[in-house]
Amino acid sequence: MTSASMPPATRPDGRRADALRPVRITRRYTKYAEGSVLVEFGETKVICTASVAEKVPPFLRDKNQGWLTAEYGMLPRATHTRGDREAARGKQSGRTQEIQRLIGRALRAVFDLEKFGQRTLHLDCDVIQADGGTRTASITGAFVAAHDAVSELLASGQLAESPIRDFVAAVSVGIHRGVPVLDLNYLEDSDCDTDMNVVMTGAGGFVEIQGTAEGEPFTREQSNTLLDLASTGIGQLVQLQKQALGLL
Amino acid sequence: MTSASMPPATRPDGRRADALRPVRITRRYTKYAEGSVLVEFGETKVICTASVAEKVPPFLRDKNQGWLTAEYGMLPRATHTRGDREAARGKQSGRTQEIQRLIGRALRAVFDLEKFGQRTLHLDCDVIQADGGTRTASITGAFVAAHDAVSELLASGQLAESPIRDFVAAVSVGIHRGVPVLDLNYLEDSDCDTDMNVVMTGAGGFVEIQGTAEGEPFTREQSNTLLDLASTGIGQLVQLQKQALGLL
Amino acid sequence: MTSASMPPATRPDGRRADALRPVRITRRYTKYAEGSVLVEFGETKVICTASVAEKVPPFLRDKNQGWLTAEYGMLPRATHTRGDREAARGKQSGRTQEIQRLIGRALRAVFDLEKFGQRTLHLDCDVIQADGGTRTASITGAFVAAHDAVSELLASGQLAESPIRDFVAAVSVGIHRGVPVLDLNYLEDSDCDTDMNVVMTGAGGFVEIQGTAEGEPFTREQSNTLLDLASTGIGQLVQLQKQALGLL
Amino acid sequence: MTSASMPPATRPDGRRADALRPVRITRRYTKYAEGSVLVEFGETKVICTASVAEKVPPFLRDKNQGWLTAEYGMLPRATHTRGDREAARGKQSGRTQEIQRLIGRALRAVFDLEKFGQRTLHLDCDVIQADGGTRTASITGAFVAAHDAVSELLASGQLAESPIRDFVAAVSVGIHRGVPVLDLNYLEDSDCDTDMNVVMTGAGGFVEIQGTAEGEPFTREQSNTLLDLASTGIGQLVQLQKQALGLL
Amino acid sequence: MTSASMPPATRPDGRRADALRPVRITRRYTKYAEGSVLVEFGETKVICTASVAEKVPPFLRDKNQGWLTAEYGMLPRATHTRGDREAARGKQSGRTQEIQRLIGRALRAVFDLEKFGQRTLHLDCDVIQADGGTRTASITGAFVAAHDAVSELLASGQLAESPIRDFVAAVSVGIHRGVPVLDLNYLEDSDCDTDMNVVMTGAGGFVEIQGTAEGEPFTREQSNTLLDLASTGIGQLVQLQKQALGLL
Amino acid sequence: MTSASMPPATRPDGRRADALRPVRITRRYTKYAEGSVLVEFGETKVICTASVAEKVPPFLRDKNQGWLTAEYGMLPRATHTRGDREAARGKQSGRTQEIQRLIGRALRAVFDLEKFGQRTLHLDCDVIQADGGTRTASITGAFVAAHDAVSELLASGQLAESPIRDFVAAVSVGIHRGVPVLDLNYLEDSDCDTDMNVVMTGAGGFVEIQGTAEGEPFTREQSNTLLDLASTGIGQLVQLQKQALGLL
Repeated sequence: MTSASMPPATRPDGRRADALRPVRITRRYTKYAEGSVLVEFGETKVICTASVAEKVPPFLRDKNQGWLTAEYGMLPRATHTRGDREAARGKQSGRTQEIQRLIGRALRAVFDLEKFGQRTLHLDCDVIQADGGTRTASITGAFVAAHDAVSELLASGQLAESPIRDFVAAVSVGIHRGVPVLDLNYLEDSDCDTDMNVVMTGAGGFVEIQGTAEGEPFTREQSNTLLDLASTGIGQLVQLQKQALGLL
Repeated sequence: MTSASMPPATRPDGRRADALRPVRITRRYTKYAEGSVLVEFGETKVICTASVAEKVPPFLRDKNQGWLTAEYGMLPRATHTRGDREAARGKQSGRTQEIQRLIGRALRAVFDLEKFGQRTLHLDCDVIQADGGTRTASITGAFVAAHDAVSELLASGQLAESPIRDFVAAVSVGIHRGVPVLDLNYLEDSDCDTDMNVVMTGAGGFVEIQGTAEGEPFTREQSNTLLDLASTGIGQLVQLQKQALGLL
Repeated sequence: MTSASMPPATRPDGRRADALRPVRITRRYTKYAEGSVLVEFGETKVICTASVAEKVPPFLRDKNQGWLTAEYGMLPRATHTRGDREAARGKQSGRTQEIQRLIGRALRAVFDLEKFGQRTLHLDCDVIQADGGTRTASITGAFVAAHDAVSELLASGQLAESPIRDFVAAVSVGIHRGVPVLDLNYLEDSDCDTDMNVVMTGAGGFVEIQGTAEGEPFTREQSNTLLDLASTGIGQLVQLQKQALGLL
Repeated sequence: MTSASMPPATRPDGRRADALRPVRITRRYTKYAEGSVLVEFGETKVICTASVAEKVPPFLRDKNQGWLTAEYGMLPRATHTRGDREAARGKQSGRTQEIQRLIGRALRAVFDLEKFGQRTLHLDCDVIQADGGTRTASITGAFVAAHDAVSELLASGQLAESPIRDFVAAVSVGIHRGVPVLDLNYLEDSDCDTDMNVVMTGAGGFVEIQGTAEGEPFTREQSNTLLDLASTGIGQLVQLQKQALGLL
Repeated sequence: MTSASMPPATRPDGRRADALRPVRITRRYTKYAEGSVLVEFGETKVICTASVAEKVPPFLRDKNQGWLTAEYGMLPRATHTRGDREAARGKQSGRTQEIQRLIGRALRAVFDLEKFGQRTLHLDCDVIQADGGTRTASITGAFVAAHDAVSELLASGQLAESPIRDFVAAVSVGIHRGVPVLDLNYLEDSDCDTDMNVVMTGAGGFVEIQGTAEGEPFTREQSNTLLDLASTGIGQLVQLQKQALGLL
Repeated sequence: MTSASMPPATRPDGRRADALRPVRITRRYTKYAEGSVLVEFGETKVICTASVAEKVPPFLRDKNQGWLTAEYGMLPRATHTRGDREAARGKQSGRTQEIQRLIGRALRAVFDLEKFGQRTLHLDCDVIQADGGTRTASITGAFVAAHDAVSELLASGQLAESPIRDFVAAVSVGIHRGVPVLDLNYLEDSDCDTDMNVVMTGAGGFVEIQGTAEGEPFTREQSNTLLDLASTGIGQLVQLQKQALGLL
């Protein structure tokens, strides 16, 4: 799909259908973590930290490899109305667990755990303001935080070779009022027929496709259009990750 | 993709790449539930019950519609090695929650909640033997259980019109040792590069696509091949649902 | 008590007061567990699996003996109205814990843990349909599952000698509308004055007697009549266990 | 069995086989509860309080009857070695739940809930020192506390008629080194073949019999001997309850 | 105590003993909350939001007053080494609960709940970077967030009169290596003999004094010196609150 | 402050403003614990036990020192109206955790953990009747229990030298209807403007000061008056501890 074929802009924030929101990636956002990134997809803001621990979980003991795991949370008032604090309620919601499992899988897809030694990389993604796309922003930001943590291990000689095999980033796409659009904000997300989260590598391979019909089922053609939009968007996000890391 | 183009059968159980495992759908499996189905995808066996409750959760009170929700569980020794009992451990795993959320969304996609009255339909999917594909078998069986429960409400005059808009079924597809295959068993599932769960309606619309690269990222072409396989398989499953319901 | 002295059959299902419901014991019901039994006492159906784990709980470490423990559960719609899923609620009820403790004690009473090595035998009893007597069916079926698991260990040479000292089975008895009856179904159980669960060995020794006055207190004579009924019933159950195991 | 036929005293504390430990029942032990009793069976000491709440649990709403429920706990150092505090661990053990369910059933057996109005009687039994028989002491003491609470409601005119139909008390019996004995202390309890807890009414009816073979199975004759011992003991306990209440 | 009498600066960060760290109060930090403040005490950074809910907790229903409550949390990597995520662990630590109770009491001390209507003000204090003094920064920032939320209610006419009676702020003081110091950072806090958190109103009244001897007990004289330091510091904090609110 | 300057007795129980309630310290209250004390501050009654465990928590392993920790609880009917049992609710309240953390800190302040060996001293404070001041009574009683436990270790040669460096006791003070008073009972506590809990050593050093304005903020002068009252009271409590221990 070329942008020429897109319908005129009718999106709530005036964006073209194939446009990302303004993306900002701020490194070294907090001072203790080996990697710390504030990632912004428009009004969605997530703090992603990467913490290195010199041990692995029990199921990997003595297996001569490392581990990478992710956790996700939202501040209670990251959203329009205040949500319960999960720590106070005593458990993480199904949604939270689903998202943090997704983030972990996405990052492990580009991470060679055998080259990471007996270490765990903890990625914490905490949403301080939510306007749609928190999971895709989390993946995109967590990659940069993980890259910084690995760079520090390489610089200090704790790692001889980088376990990172490729870039990874994510974006949402969806069909909003009949129009396939890229990078939905909350208004669009809560009013769309189909919602798809896509995770891809820098080389353009798919790591995850999660498409859900919220209203009417979607067709193969719609799916293809959405994957086209996502590919374009993720290509841009990977460029932004590289710029943020000073690799361009 | 036609089956003619498939490579010769190399699957662990001798199946063709595009063949479902033997599927059995046994209705009225237990006696109390409004709908009760034992669904078998080969050696995977799931008891799916549909229970009607004459109330709705608090967030729907006074909204003049019904609700449909699903829960999923596995008997501790449904698997090769015994797993912890979630009730004894005191919480459901992230995997369990992810699956039951998927089942619920899949069924709601073909269910008109406004035609269901102030009722909740509880779908319980309990795996008594697991050999891969428990979530897709659950969705496929739960639909039949839901259909039976609705038929009972129609027969008794409690519902005037069916809230069910279409059939829904699900199947897994994946790339096993380079070969795209349909309906993976456990052996294939634990050794595949890409795993995709697909939920479709009887009319052939997509409700969910959840594809994950377990090893290498997958390509657009592979994704298309997998979706072809899934469409074929789900078409067959819907036929089997109709046969089981005596609608053919 | 001889059956001659029993009053004419007035039981809801037409049984004689001293008659068991039809009992079926199906071995190798699921395929992974070392022992797997579907036990049916009339409409009560329980899947009992025996799983061998090559380790013992911490309190037995280095004590040169094994352990045997039981867990119990009900599918949410095993009953007339759907019950909460204990895994979702986050804890097992007092009733569940009481029953699984009883099952474990009953089986340990005929099991020589010192002859079992540094192993644990997990017995899981999951009720898929409940019509009274789920705990007694569980004990009766779990014994057969345990026997199969032990036979496998003997056959493979992992055990030199069987730790099983005797058979064990269980039945409920009660006073229903003034009549002492054997093996109560749900209708009787929910409308009886006294309810007693009895566990006995193949040799006729008592392992557990748990009698409760639901309405009026019961007398010593009634207790004796109930224990007579139970002895007869358990004798028959042990015969059925032997038949199922091919030992008759 | 008459005491004449008992073997010479060989019990650890020098008691005759058919002798209770010294029993003390102290009313108004703490000052706020409607009934508050310290009950001592030898070195076993339990604080039993009865609290009246002017409401019933949801399942009894609008049913025009009351409710009675019991809870049980042990101070962490009520025992030889310190046990975990259940409040800190975050759950009550299976043993605790089993005991508090027993206490509740025992008291409800002599309590006419329909005469209690829309009220709940909470019985809390907290063991401050344990030397065997904590559940039987709890039942025996809780009855006195309940009686005091009811008397207060009668005195104040809140109840017109007592819901208490009879006395209820409990005692343990067991076979210790071959000798049937009454009211086991901890030393005997932890070294006995058969352990039986018996709950009876003042009129001599059985409310609960819970007999467990800890080692060898027990015979019908042993069961009868134990029930004889229990009947004698409970008869004495009911007299002590009456004395404590000033009803003799 | 005048600053003239202070020993020469020996603090890790070169501050005078009676100097606050640089304090920054950023209002409208996130966009949804009625009040949203980023408060920084040096390297300690806390997001404080004030959320208005149009209901009160059950214990205040029909009492014609409002409620104010606080919750506190830390991002896992707010600290030198990553801490467990409380939501994942399933409970808030004792420290967390202690702090959020303190914040709530501090704010209620200057808040007239009877003038707040049937509303709840939720104050959420989430630490994104911790370098000592997180609870005092939280109180200081939460006041500003609460003030903004109240101003919005006043502006919209939902409140006729402000329930805020005075300012409130907090600071820590302690004896570090023998020297009484104001506003300890983490290095000082983890190496001090006495640690005191003080909450005061704008008018100079004490709301909370919480002093703890970490090593040697402290004297009355030391306590007085610390309270002097705290009074000075809180006076400055209240000025900074007023500046931030544009009230100076 | 001398008692001469106190206003005439107006306290609910007729005490002078600077008078403690009758204090009783009963050692060896229960029989198993190494130290077991019933402490009474008027109608407040707390059982304090000290239990020695021959191990330390993980964070102290191989650090050649011991540990001391406290837990606190209330029987459900220790208070005017029955409170929920924390073990049944599944968690300790914030209040409970705050109190047990305070007790632990207070005792550790006079305890040289390096002289205690690889042991843990568990202090359990369980309130059987509450009339204000349960935390201060707990600290005062726990010290005596700890002292007894240490004496036993010294007597048996398990410790060569006492780890106890000084006495420690606690008392509450407050401003009740304008009058500064010592050792508040429940009536005063629930109706006071300022409430302060003070922990001091035998030598007169401060271990904890926790002052809270319940209504109006308090002044420095009021704080000083309260600390004077507390010092006097704690001096008397330490004398009573010494008497109880036979050290006077």
